Amino acid sequence: MSALPAQPAPTPSPTPDPATGAAVKAMDRAHVFHSWSAQGLIDPLAVAGAEGAYFWDYDGNRYLDFSSQLVNTNIGHQHPKVVAAVREQAAKLCTIAPGFAVDVRSEAARLIAERTPGDLDKIFFTNGGAEAVENAVRMARLHTGRPKVLSAYRSYHGATAAAINLTGDPRRWPSDTASAGVVHFWGPFLYRSPFHSADERQECERALAHLEETIAFEGPQSIAAIILETVPGTAGIMVPPPGYLAGVREICDRYGIVFVLDEVMAGFGRTGHWFAADHFGVTPDLLTFAKGVNSGYVPLGGVAISARIAADFDQRPYPGGLTYSGHPLACASAVATINAMAEEGIVENAAEIGEKVIGPGLREIAERHPSVGEVRGLGVFWALDLVKSKETREPLVPYNASGPANQPMAEFAAACKRGGLWPFVNMNRTHVVPPCTITEAEAKEGLAILDEALSAADAHTV
Amino acid sequence: MSALPAQPAPTPSPTPDPATGAAVKAMDRAHVFHSWSAQGLIDPLAVAGAEGAYFWDYDGNRYLDFSSQLVNTNIGHQHPKVVAAVREQAAKLCTIAPGFAVDVRSEAARLIAERTPGDLDKIFFTNGGAEAVENAVRMARLHTGRPKVLSAYRSYHGATAAAINLTGDPRRWPSDTASAGVVHFWGPFLYRSPFHSADERQECERALAHLEETIAFEGPQSIAAIILETVPGTAGIMVPPPGYLAGVREICDRYGIVFVLDEVMAGFGRTGHWFAADHFGVTPDLLTFAKGVNSGYVPLGGVAISARIAADFDQRPYPGGLTYSGHPLACASAVATINAMAEEGIVENAAEIGEKVIGPGLREIAERHPSVGEVRGLGVFWALDLVKSKETREPLVPYNASGPANQPMAEFAAACKRGGLWPFVNMNRTHVVPPCTITEAEAKEGLAILDEALSAADAHTV
Repeated sequence: MSALPAQPAPTPSPTPDPATGAAVKAMDRAHVFHSWSAQGLIDPLAVAGAEGAYFWDYDGNRYLDFSSQLVNTNIGHQHPKVVAAVREQAAKLCTIAPGFAVDVRSEAARLIAERTPGDLDKIFFTNGGAEAVENAVRMARLHTGRPKVLSAYRSYHGATAAAINLTGDPRRWPSDTASAGVVHFWGPFLYRSPFHSADERQECERALAHLEETIAFEGPQSIAAIILETVPGTAGIMVPPPGYLAGVREICDRYGIVFVLDEVMAGFGRTGHWFAADHFGVTPDLLTFAKGVNSGYVPLGGVAISARIAADFDQRPYPGGLTYSGHPLACASAVATINAMAEEGIVENAAEIGEKVIGPGLREIAERHPSVGEVRGLGVFWALDLVKSKETREPLVPYNASGPANQPMAEFAAACKRGGLWPFVNMNRTHVVPPCTITEAEAKEGLAILDEALSAADAHTV
Repeated sequence: MSALPAQPAPTPSPTPDPATGAAVKAMDRAHVFHSWSAQGLIDPLAVAGAEGAYFWDYDGNRYLDFSSQLVNTNIGHQHPKVVAAVREQAAKLCTIAPGFAVDVRSEAARLIAERTPGDLDKIFFTNGGAEAVENAVRMARLHTGRPKVLSAYRSYHGATAAAINLTGDPRRWPSDTASAGVVHFWGPFLYRSPFHSADERQECERALAHLEETIAFEGPQSIAAIILETVPGTAGIMVPPPGYLAGVREICDRYGIVFVLDEVMAGFGRTGHWFAADHFGVTPDLLTFAKGVNSGYVPLGGVAISARIAADFDQRPYPGGLTYSGHPLACASAVATINAMAEEGIVENAAEIGEKVIGPGLREIAERHPSVGEVRGLGVFWALDLVKSKETREPLVPYNASGPANQPMAEFAAACKRGGLWPFVNMNRTHVVPPCTITEAEAKEGLAILDEALSAADAHTV
């Protein structure tokens, strides 16, 4: 039933060589400083290779990738068409300054603009999601002449200064020295409702009223933008209730506020549509993207810009840029990725596998496990909210837990890995975010491992 | 005499096809939003190909690249060893999350650490220079627990929020909404001395006294870091006088301030050493890099971290990161670039061409042209400061001029391009920043075109 045929799992190659893996790791520990990590406490797995939904180490262990790395390999590892395009472009022209016109840059922009909602037809390319958010914020501030930007608690927008200040998770705290101009509000999230709502309709109404009240107290004339992840990603995959995003759009229009949708994680097939905004029929003024646009084969991100905002910078220079904006190698990989996703029905596959395999499979798993409080998501973008008790909904581990307090989640993650599954774990949640190319057989294989590993979480319920 | 043999200039290939060029440009204008540009006023050249120190369009025009694009193609265009490495890595493993250990990531970090001064032996990889600066600032603030960062007027550090606030040129102004915590001071620049000095020794003394006084009035206990480009790049290639950087180092030590050297533009051979800091015998606490590390063949930047600061994040997590930190394709291109530069004596070539060809050539040109106020630089990193009058030193165009006020520089740039030279132009300056691989013959060809084009500038002298 899946749009994509079943594939045999790849055999690790080259032949596993533990000594090489040990050398790679030793050199890593001597010289590589890792993201978001205590350098002395980590023991990074040395990866030898990857293909499709799998990667493997030097010791003969193979993992089914239910994390898509950092939710970016939407097309899977080493897709032959994308690899071929990178190799071809490398032979032709690796880099050129942003000021020139280049065939692959023009074509990548066209293919993206063709898919973005509404009139978001001008593409400003960056190296990744954080820079996309930085530039969206700059555009909104210049468009409105206003200083403040509203963003949600339970969000992640990147780690450069403006992006991390907008973020609504604990990663913001150590970098919050320059947060002037950022105001956080609460988005809808029925399972842990900030508004004590009884159902989705009430949650939507109350969340919109809360946003409007926040705007009133901050002063609408001081607010440049509202930025939201269309479906918040790392913070928990909370699909917004029907009407919420349309309501935010209407509020933005009423107050002359720029509406920014961050689709860095949710875009390019992850939710079963090209963009998550397509589920809700909403067109933002600016849309940020990265990750899935080329599955991260080469660093790339960007902002899709509405005609009205683009027009601001028709006669005066846009005051932002970067050396690698519209990088040819990155653009070539985006062209190949988008074309392959279209040709092979990969977005449709994500929708179908989500609806027919992952969604039902996770709901069935939830019934069997006392630790699974809620299953939510769409496409290949799902979260299990793990709890101490289904009744109280108390998270399995406290917010931002580390060390011994985080032990239950650490045990669960270790059980997944022992079973051959690489999970995405954040706080008291595990996200099921495999490549959009995943087959029915692979999804079922992963769900079976997850099912077994959840016993480790169940052991900590009350 | 040059370390590199003369090469025949490459013949444009494929055969120029103006219709293709026109289509590329039309699609660019329809969908690509360009860095730092008024979108309605630009007419981007469609580039068809590039090799070594040349690139060409679809109309049969070939340009000698005296800009190295945005001063990043230190190894020239399409270096066969780097292209081969990118192609090989693409076939093997394009991307993997930052949490893993990977052979090319380990090796790139080792090769960089081997070359950075002092104990800067831990490498945090980013996608480019701005993110490197963002992370260096975060490390400094967390290391000291202090909020402020001092940076120089006449500087450029990138365009994300913290990086652009640190920048000391007009590109900062439109994005200065969140500049809390940034204080600008004046660095040494004898030709336009902020301190009215008579010679380099006096300029050095007065610049250090000014910095120390600024620190006293801002409060040393509030200052996390001083960030300087070792040799300021886009702002004018002002080589610091002997003793200045050592003096800043001493001041930083005295007050417990983190010393950050930004080598995004000056690093990896540009000045005729692996790092510009090598000229001055100074070791910073943090060193940022990008561009030349892999000549921008794949987006890459990073921070080299001292043992003392790295140790802060041994037991507690470093609170920063990005999806593409240590990107395999980018790291593979860095490994190949650094190895090729070492094997082929490319850094030595930059030093030799600068000392024996470009420096003497530019000084000779300056004598002939009333518009050339000063020649300064080293390696393949030179500036001509263009003036209305050698006596008054009044800049040929006002600070941050645009439109008609900038006409003299626009005419000069157009004359270079007509002659087949692609110049780097900023305000009243042209920078001579060719690839580090440039041969004596190519350098002389470029200097001859420059010589002729300067007549256009001379016409505006008084």
